[in-house]
Amino acid sequence: MFEAKGKVEIFKRIVEVVSVIVNEVKFNIKDDGFHIKAVDPAHVAMVELNIAPQAFNEYNAEDTELGVDLDKMESIIRLGKGNDEMDATYDEDSERLVIRIGNLVRKMTLLDVSTMPDLKIPNLQFPAKVELLADDFLLGIRAAQSVSDYVVLTAEKDSFELSAGTQEEINQKFSKEQLLSLECKDKSRSLFSLDYLSSMMKGIRSGEKLAIFIGNDYPVRIEFETLDGNASVAYLLAPRTEIE
Amino acid sequence: MFEAKGKVEIFKRIVEVVSVIVNEVKFNIKDDGFHIKAVDPAHVAMVELNIAPQAFNEYNAEDTELGVDLDKMESIIRLGKGNDEMDATYDEDSERLVIRIGNLVRKMTLLDVSTMPDLKIPNLQFPAKVELLADDFLLGIRAAQSVSDYVVLTAEKDSFELSAGTQEEINQKFSKEQLLSLECKDKSRSLFSLDYLSSMMKGIRSGEKLAIFIGNDYPVRIEFETLDGNASVAYLLAPRTEIE
Amino acid sequence: MFEAKGKVEIFKRIVEVVSVIVNEVKFNIKDDGFHIKAVDPAHVAMVELNIAPQAFNEYNAEDTELGVDLDKMESIIRLGKGNDEMDATYDEDSERLVIRIGNLVRKMTLLDVSTMPDLKIPNLQFPAKVELLADDFLLGIRAAQSVSDYVVLTAEKDSFELSAGTQEEINQKFSKEQLLSLECKDKSRSLFSLDYLSSMMKGIRSGEKLAIFIGNDYPVRIEFETLDGNASVAYLLAPRTEIE
Repeated sequence: MFEAKGKVEIFKRIVEVVSVIVNEVKFNIKDDGFHIKAVDPAHVAMVELNIAPQAFNEYNAEDTELGVDLDKMESIIRLGKGNDEMDATYDEDSERLVIRIGNLVRKMTLLDVSTMPDLKIPNLQFPAKVELLADDFLLGIRAAQSVSDYVVLTAEKDSFELSAGTQEEINQKFSKEQLLSLECKDKSRSLFSLDYLSSMMKGIRSGEKLAIFIGNDYPVRIEFETLDGNASVAYLLAPRTEIE
Repeated sequence: MFEAKGKVEIFKRIVEVVSVIVNEVKFNIKDDGFHIKAVDPAHVAMVELNIAPQAFNEYNAEDTELGVDLDKMESIIRLGKGNDEMDATYDEDSERLVIRIGNLVRKMTLLDVSTMPDLKIPNLQFPAKVELLADDFLLGIRAAQSVSDYVVLTAEKDSFELSAGTQEEINQKFSKEQLLSLECKDKSRSLFSLDYLSSMMKGIRSGEKLAIFIGNDYPVRIEFETLDGNASVAYLLAPRTEIE
Repeated sequence: MFEAKGKVEIFKRIVEVVSVIVNEVKFNIKDDGFHIKAVDPAHVAMVELNIAPQAFNEYNAEDTELGVDLDKMESIIRLGKGNDEMDATYDEDSERLVIRIGNLVRKMTLLDVSTMPDLKIPNLQFPAKVELLADDFLLGIRAAQSVSDYVVLTAEKDSFELSAGTQEEINQKFSKEQLLSLECKDKSRSLFSLDYLSSMMKGIRSGEKLAIFIGNDYPVRIEFETLDGNASVAYLLAPRTEIE
């Protein structure tokens, strides 16, 4: 049993955040909100999304698992305006998700969740944590893309640095003062694919605050809150081995 | 003999309304205005456009038939701003249409009207008439396109409905109160190609009021006024046979 | 030795003006400013750009020649906002151009200037000079493109005219009063490729004043000032022989 009513904007943001990683996902719906954990087809990047019932105007749910094709969901949601009221209900008889925006009703078939095992997000310990504005980080990612397919993220006691390329080179160094916060026990340095990082950045909005966790040749975890603090998102990306 | 002066906007709208159906058309020009009747190359959709001389700032015409390539006309009109003054004159000596916008003069060759017979718009009797805002109808058409190539329009005594798809389903139902008006003697239900309907919607502007006439396995006629009521437009579309 | 600091906008405009002609250019940097002379790969169009040190907030230079790939430069500049401060410095040790915008640093390799000979701009005498607003000329160029690949520019004692096509015809005639100025000793008439002219127009901004110099079957020279009068630009285009 599941029904949620809220602004179209809420549903747009859910689709946006998750679809940059993968298109077919399982919504774990509980009385304490939505929980989505998904991995990209190449098993390199993961997303974890938790949305509190407070994000919606009305929310009624018992434990339900829904397999959703996000493209299909997006094709109907984009017809609504951000402030339009939308209603999503699981219809148990037809096993379809019913989406209503105004007098428009979309009945959507669902994916078979029995073939979608629960994803385990690895439990990681990060030696460094950096907080900064999404726009600042996005600028570096975009610049890096003009010289390389990879980027190195380095945290030290007093700085966080993004660098890419060798002869054609990009470097963006933040002093501790230029960051919202910096905690770093040991110098941490890892290499990442810009394809994945720049996809993730499409799920992040201008003005959002990022917490970036890094280690040494270790995954990166990028966390942020969205939907007025009613949703928390984490992206996790495996490192690339450095070719030297 | 033909000369019309008016805002570029007037001419843009004429091209816009007709070119969604067909690109080469005959302008029947009389002292009571322009009259265009045209059918698409597959003979499935028609457009009928009547423009009163009041749409223009100056209008002088004796009976004239002009064969116009709308793409060619559009390529010059789009260079003008909506409020610029434009002058269209038929030059009998060179048999060209002369378009002036500011100090820009475009002389355009015309199509041979002798090969463009007058189109007869069939005289149809419709059991149902629905009036609603273009934006509401457009929303349903767009939604339908995400699930099917066809849409069913159904009028009943107290409702008008647009539906598409089966498992993946779209439904948009207007109660009588949600419509500007509804007249329906008998339940009327017909199936239409979304390709054609969505093309027609490109000729209609946000905020315009549509009168939709439907029947049972019968064509649909969509009427609206534009250019401050100085032009009336009707689109006519043949039904598709239902495959079942 | 070379270092210039100024708004990102300044560097954007330099790239914009020159890259419509050619992508790899030599910057001749002197204490009195930048000087760029470049020709397109087909040797049909040239650009000459002179920028005064006053365009920048800080400018320190001894005679330096830098071979610059403008695409590469554009890829970093477009990440800055127009009002952001940018710093461009030649690093003699690594022989790279170092561009800083905020905390972002781009180190760019340079082209070998020894293979880039100084370009001689031919010394031409023009019998006619016309001054007008870029927007007016651009309108005619765009209109001409809808009927032909070539355009004829004609200056007479009391008028300047742009015309293209024969049966499908475009004509834009400016009386002396419609121009900012007109000096014409003898009727001057030349034919030009619209491909080149329309490329050049992409380097010119709305509101800029053009001085157009023409002759009889002779090149055209289009001059304008930009960056608040701190930069002067000239485009030179060879005429086409008329096919008759």
